[in-house]
Amino acid sequence: MHLPEFLQVKRDRGAHDPGSLRAFVAGVADGSVPDYQAAAWLMAVCFAGMTDEETAVYADALAASGDRLDLGDLPHTVDKHSTGGVGDKTTLVLAPLLAALGATVAKVSGRGLGHTGGTIDKLEAIPGYRATVDREAFLRQAHEVGVVVSGQSQRMAPADGVLYALRDATATVASLPLIAASVMSKKLAGGARAIQLDVKVGRGAFMTDLAQGRELGRLMRVIGERAGRSVGVTLSSMEQPLGRTVGNALEVREAIDALRGGGPDDLRELVIALASDLLHASGLDGTPERVAAALDDGSAYERFVRWVAAQGGDLDRSDALALAPDASDLTAERSGVVAELDALAFGRAVRQLGGGRAAKGDRIDLGVGIRLHAKIGDRMSAGDPVATLLHRGGHGLGAAHAVLSGAVRIADAAEPAPLVLGRA
Amino acid sequence: MHLPEFLQVKRDRGAHDPGSLRAFVAGVADGSVPDYQAAAWLMAVCFAGMTDEETAVYADALAASGDRLDLGDLPHTVDKHSTGGVGDKTTLVLAPLLAALGATVAKVSGRGLGHTGGTIDKLEAIPGYRATVDREAFLRQAHEVGVVVSGQSQRMAPADGVLYALRDATATVASLPLIAASVMSKKLAGGARAIQLDVKVGRGAFMTDLAQGRELGRLMRVIGERAGRSVGVTLSSMEQPLGRTVGNALEVREAIDALRGGGPDDLRELVIALASDLLHASGLDGTPERVAAALDDGSAYERFVRWVAAQGGDLDRSDALALAPDASDLTAERSGVVAELDALAFGRAVRQLGGGRAAKGDRIDLGVGIRLHAKIGDRMSAGDPVATLLHRGGHGLGAAHAVLSGAVRIADAAEPAPLVLGRA
Repeated sequence: MHLPEFLQVKRDRGAHDPGSLRAFVAGVADGSVPDYQAAAWLMAVCFAGMTDEETAVYADALAASGDRLDLGDLPHTVDKHSTGGVGDKTTLVLAPLLAALGATVAKVSGRGLGHTGGTIDKLEAIPGYRATVDREAFLRQAHEVGVVVSGQSQRMAPADGVLYALRDATATVASLPLIAASVMSKKLAGGARAIQLDVKVGRGAFMTDLAQGRELGRLMRVIGERAGRSVGVTLSSMEQPLGRTVGNALEVREAIDALRGGGPDDLRELVIALASDLLHASGLDGTPERVAAALDDGSAYERFVRWVAAQGGDLDRSDALALAPDASDLTAERSGVVAELDALAFGRAVRQLGGGRAAKGDRIDLGVGIRLHAKIGDRMSAGDPVATLLHRGGHGLGAAHAVLSGAVRIADAAEPAPLVLGRA
Repeated sequence: MHLPEFLQVKRDRGAHDPGSLRAFVAGVADGSVPDYQAAAWLMAVCFAGMTDEETAVYADALAASGDRLDLGDLPHTVDKHSTGGVGDKTTLVLAPLLAALGATVAKVSGRGLGHTGGTIDKLEAIPGYRATVDREAFLRQAHEVGVVVSGQSQRMAPADGVLYALRDATATVASLPLIAASVMSKKLAGGARAIQLDVKVGRGAFMTDLAQGRELGRLMRVIGERAGRSVGVTLSSMEQPLGRTVGNALEVREAIDALRGGGPDDLRELVIALASDLLHASGLDGTPERVAAALDDGSAYERFVRWVAAQGGDLDRSDALALAPDASDLTAERSGVVAELDALAFGRAVRQLGGGRAAKGDRIDLGVGIRLHAKIGDRMSAGDPVATLLHRGGHGLGAAHAVLSGAVRIADAAEPAPLVLGRA
């Protein structure tokens, strides 16, 4: 393959033939395509885009660059991906709930970066929990418990790993076909037959615009469907944090509340919507009533306990889900109705407290976080606490309060914001 | 400097501030900007372009990345650049002609690549000629002879060298601001106060379109003028080869003919046009009559001989300008008037014979080439030789004839093509 000619096709806004696109991705994976040529291609795609056909081939080639999980004879395999948000503990509730209702959730998940959290980090707030499980144990647990969640291995979609690092360094992250293919390459390699995508839209999400979110969802659906998967896309709001907690241990506690039939309304609403779609897509009974019952009758929580135990986690230890010892309130500056709770600012504030990463590999404090005492549409009096910051000896507290300055707006009147914005 | 932010500016079609553009180029020169970030930037410029202001700053930063020649007190320093053509031996005639008329030509020149020739290669057909001269000898010869032509040192615009190699590997050569800045960076570093640019347009040139050529010329003029130079731009046709020879030794012979008042009409016309403009720009008498007289009275040739001798060349040696020993004619397929002589094909044919490079550093045969017996507008009879290929024992002869198949078109009638197409 003559790489300058390949690059020229995209520079001239043309479409690659499938063979050369696959050869390019294979070359990225085996190191025969130098970084500078891959970087030039990524920038060309930012300007010229890719057709649906190219995007699907590219995603499949990324998946083919490494190991693929064979979930073979596991019943009703399902997977779910969120494009990243603040306070998003959905997977922690959804995975055992789906398993309790007959699906198999054998899932590879990630860590948090920037202002967004990651499921693997949250689970590590449970002492003993093994974040990464080898393939044999992964498949055994999927069979026996119906749910297993493991960190990503280096051998899954390695070309995506190389290209993602280049995108980060060359300002080429924000391209819808590149984003869609990167996400879906890991879902395709993950092997589940039904995939639910939760595209977050709003100020705390990567997509701030609904039309863009819808297009991203459509692209991911096209990729999945061309690879023979059943794909559902939910667009959900990330204007304010999901639920009433942001921070790792805090979010696991809130997820447990939801698994026991409690927890905040918006979290429960989103979990039921996603579960319902996924169960339907897998040929199982997904009526909202049946899903809600599994939360209310303890069966989802029972499955959560079995899952955590299977991966070594001990919820009964005294240090399980330990919270940071110090608290500092953020109070309402006036009386009225909460009109804005800037999700991005709350995500950044938790990072300032030590609960999030500025760069990959940073150590984080799982006990810090923020409890919200109100959500958009709730009435407050001046001086009431809007949120409580859990911190460790004041570490990052000033910076967190600074980030939150202006994040809460109280008006004379405001409507609760809708959570589920649509499907794509 | 945060490079992803710098790249994001151009990805979003913005303009760089001068400081960050200079820092980027300095980083390319000192190696602190990795290849992949430079490559992504080059691709972004291919799509988003640069403003005149950015292009001028970028060219000046490229020039500032290495040594600049200080031509200080030399009188009427002039330089000329051609964007590359087939049979273009203009510099060989123009440089001594200008020196004979009172200007100083202290010039850095290049080697040929692809289908185009290079002045330095041509001069090496003269035995003993030293292609590269050190700085002290360069300035001394400029003072004493008024003309010196040397190959480019690695220390001149080194950032351009790095970026040019990346452009070649990433299909990002064809961007007008990148081309203009690359050419002009070396002219700015070269130090001449008046610069004449000969932008070739046509099938044997990099610019095949007149409007594009005009825009390239305009950009180069803007760069030069912002750096305080006097800049003239001539647009000249490269539909057919210039003059009647293509190939290194052959072209020097033809240049000598022109320096003695003979040679082909088109070469003489172009040389007089360029010289006239440059002399005017330098405040010297540039009337075409005065310029023509210097060709006809032997003073230009006398200066050529002094120049070549000063760089060690011996025109009297028996192997001076030696030609390849074997000849093969290309004959007219029908009677009529020559309507096309595809310059690109003739350039490629000479490369096939061994007279041009496929890649930098390739050795070339200076004695091979092509003599044209007709030009566009000339009448031929079927079977007449249109051209003679000088080859060495048949090396590349079949390939050269194959490349020339279809390169000559004879019609019932055709007008001679205009040579000078305009000024930009």
